[in-house]
Amino acid sequence: MTLRVTVWNEGRHEKTHDKVRQVYPEGLHQPIVSFLRDQGMQAHAATLDEPEHGLTETVLAETDVLIWWGHMAHDDVQDAIVDRVQRRVLEGMGLIVLHSGHFSKIFKRLMGTSCNLKWREANERERIWVVSPGHPIAEGLGEYFEIPHEEMYGEFFDVPAPDELVFVSWFQGGEVFRSGCCYTRGRGKIFYFRPGHETHPTYYQPEVLRVIVNAVRWAAPSAGPSVTFGQRPQPLEKLD
Amino acid sequence: MTLRVTVWNEGRHEKTHDKVRQVYPEGLHQPIVSFLRDQGMQAHAATLDEPEHGLTETVLAETDVLIWWGHMAHDDVQDAIVDRVQRRVLEGMGLIVLHSGHFSKIFKRLMGTSCNLKWREANERERIWVVSPGHPIAEGLGEYFEIPHEEMYGEFFDVPAPDELVFVSWFQGGEVFRSGCCYTRGRGKIFYFRPGHETHPTYYQPEVLRVIVNAVRWAAPSAGPSVTFGQRPQPLEKLD
Amino acid sequence: MTLRVTVWNEGRHEKTHDKVRQVYPEGLHQPIVSFLRDQGMQAHAATLDEPEHGLTETVLAETDVLIWWGHMAHDDVQDAIVDRVQRRVLEGMGLIVLHSGHFSKIFKRLMGTSCNLKWREANERERIWVVSPGHPIAEGLGEYFEIPHEEMYGEFFDVPAPDELVFVSWFQGGEVFRSGCCYTRGRGKIFYFRPGHETHPTYYQPEVLRVIVNAVRWAAPSAGPSVTFGQRPQPLEKLD
Amino acid sequence: MTLRVTVWNEGRHEKTHDKVRQVYPEGLHQPIVSFLRDQGMQAHAATLDEPEHGLTETVLAETDVLIWWGHMAHDDVQDAIVDRVQRRVLEGMGLIVLHSGHFSKIFKRLMGTSCNLKWREANERERIWVVSPGHPIAEGLGEYFEIPHEEMYGEFFDVPAPDELVFVSWFQGGEVFRSGCCYTRGRGKIFYFRPGHETHPTYYQPEVLRVIVNAVRWAAPSAGPSVTFGQRPQPLEKLD
Repeated sequence: MTLRVTVWNEGRHEKTHDKVRQVYPEGLHQPIVSFLRDQGMQAHAATLDEPEHGLTETVLAETDVLIWWGHMAHDDVQDAIVDRVQRRVLEGMGLIVLHSGHFSKIFKRLMGTSCNLKWREANERERIWVVSPGHPIAEGLGEYFEIPHEEMYGEFFDVPAPDELVFVSWFQGGEVFRSGCCYTRGRGKIFYFRPGHETHPTYYQPEVLRVIVNAVRWAAPSAGPSVTFGQRPQPLEKLD
Repeated sequence: MTLRVTVWNEGRHEKTHDKVRQVYPEGLHQPIVSFLRDQGMQAHAATLDEPEHGLTETVLAETDVLIWWGHMAHDDVQDAIVDRVQRRVLEGMGLIVLHSGHFSKIFKRLMGTSCNLKWREANERERIWVVSPGHPIAEGLGEYFEIPHEEMYGEFFDVPAPDELVFVSWFQGGEVFRSGCCYTRGRGKIFYFRPGHETHPTYYQPEVLRVIVNAVRWAAPSAGPSVTFGQRPQPLEKLD
Repeated sequence: MTLRVTVWNEGRHEKTHDKVRQVYPEGLHQPIVSFLRDQGMQAHAATLDEPEHGLTETVLAETDVLIWWGHMAHDDVQDAIVDRVQRRVLEGMGLIVLHSGHFSKIFKRLMGTSCNLKWREANERERIWVVSPGHPIAEGLGEYFEIPHEEMYGEFFDVPAPDELVFVSWFQGGEVFRSGCCYTRGRGKIFYFRPGHETHPTYYQPEVLRVIVNAVRWAAPSAGPSVTFGQRPQPLEKLD
Repeated sequence: MTLRVTVWNEGRHEKTHDKVRQVYPEGLHQPIVSFLRDQGMQAHAATLDEPEHGLTETVLAETDVLIWWGHMAHDDVQDAIVDRVQRRVLEGMGLIVLHSGHFSKIFKRLMGTSCNLKWREANERERIWVVSPGHPIAEGLGEYFEIPHEEMYGEFFDVPAPDELVFVSWFQGGEVFRSGCCYTRGRGKIFYFRPGHETHPTYYQPEVLRVIVNAVRWAAPSAGPSVTFGQRPQPLEKLD
């Protein structure tokens, strides 16, 4: 079955920052969309400034996995759309949150915490270590991979302890970060993946793309039981 | 150090339902407050219909652990107070959510899920099994204890997988339920404990009170590091 | 890629107990092997009384997932074979342990605990509830399924808290049990699944077979990094 | 209640290596024993070359928490003593495993994995970050602390995913390590803590001692239910 992926990108930096436009001339989402298509998936982009942020009921109903990148305009996302995405995740849609998406309304909603962290823009080296080598999201990687220049994110990262921790980052300046965190909420799977500052060509790097496509496969909905809630019938016989 | 506990009770059933008033003439919170005091804690009640629901900034600042029971009026809790309680939990205040509090705004906020479940009022027998016998919340209990008549709650309980699962309930009518669930959010510890339908004398039962006092001790704040967030200084030397 | 499954059955009850032979005339493993083949997998049986218990280096090297059922002769399994199976699990081979296999040497080795539990043979009803409806092992199931007559297993089940808890059993006589437990050890995935007393036709029941085939797919090795251990080279430059 | 702690030290390096004797003239265990006593605990040492390695049935019966440091002579520990320690942990005794104790028989027994890792002796800087600031083992610490010169331990660390991850180490040479790992096995709590190479004065450092005393308090047995295993009585009435 062909997986259907919606890659959501805020899309504002590309309009206002030359440097970002130079790195991602067709939008930060573009290398991700292209790579997922190359892998045989049905991928399309959606952005903040489309009607309903490109996330209509129909789009979400036909999305197996939603990828989310946002940064400067988290507050412009309408609460009604956040409600809608949350509902779909609890029903089973996968969600992959990238980098500065840690501060998005939808991630904070699903985590229940501040999702705050430390950061520094110093173009420093990041080395991403695999701490769960049997996990499907680590397929095709080595024991670690490096990103030559990235923004630093440091602990404490205020999220719930992940159900599964796949990656831990080392930063040249002295920090560590839980960079690949798996969660299940309702029937939906969520993966937070740290890299991807908008001025670095991170989303062209093969290992980064590999992690994203692995995460899409891992987060795809499974055909588990439909859950029912509410009042249950009285037992046929008196219990006591 | 004397622990300071605020026992929050919605307090509406007691005003309108004779049956509840008969069981809890001074309010459902009263046996809990009394027991905590007997155990040497400083406990007081707060209720929905007080100004700011009895949860002013001052009250919360002086609360180590907050206990929460609500049912028919979850929507009457102001969002600003929910924000305030969430902030205090992330800072380290413990939170114990009882029974129908599963549907409170604050619990849904901290869990990020619907917190929905199955239920049936059939006065049936509940047997609560300890599945983590080394956990401090199980101190002083036997391998299981029974509540002779309770409302049934059944799976699927739509919460994140607990960080630690302490109790699993068996119900006479054929259901099971994860009845004692531990979470950490930010620096705060959260315990969900299932029993406590308002028409049953559950909060007078010694094992139930024992669990609550154990949970208060477990959830009390610890003197860990103050966490800081945001921008970190540039490194002294150029990194690359 | 066709998954290669070895279904290990102690195979002693079938030789000595008429009742077991009546239920499983070709061995308790046979319905499992047949079903896995029907699902397109390459499955074969191995039994205790074969040379090296049918688990030679070659067999294990060509096994993606090993299924294990044993009961009366756990002690007859040679320690050298247990070492070998453990090594393969840590390298990435999946392992599914069924029912009385909870007391096998290999399961106790991998868990580090006694793996003890309560039990009762009363032909009672077991109702297996799904508590993780988004998990791939729950695919194709309803919210619960029933086994009309089974041996009871009850808590406390002395295993490490599972990484993921998929099923909880309700028993007619008043017990509960964590019936579907996922673990990762090294690069290998392990699933413990409770049902399957040798005198009941449990392994012919469609829901039980469905769980087993789901678990095989979940436990199959993934192509993660080869891990290396031991001494790392000195850094090129002096660190201090 | 005064906690009773046995600090087990292999005690061989001190006999044969001048450098170790210079750092720890009275044995590597001595600063730990002294500090625990200063904190009001009843602490004593036990070493490999005593009869029964100093871990008789009586000693273990009167130990609330056992601390373990070993390195060059893991194989000299008798299996019968390992069995005995494991049994006591499952009954509720706490266990704290330090540094090279990762390769001890008792730790491998309780983990079920190889417990292997990467290492390098380069006297490099280690920075230990708190990733669970609400955890009692992090009490009294800052957001991180540094050890100026230590042996490096790097991922992949082949242990089960910890039930709670408290610390992650950053090393100057480019590695990370899960340095503070909590486990529950049976009724017993286990804490693995990374630092402590025998040629560095690590166990004199206040933050390191603080972590150890916090861990002792966390790992102390709790008065939970005595667990029973085995056959349960038939139900009074016929079930079906």
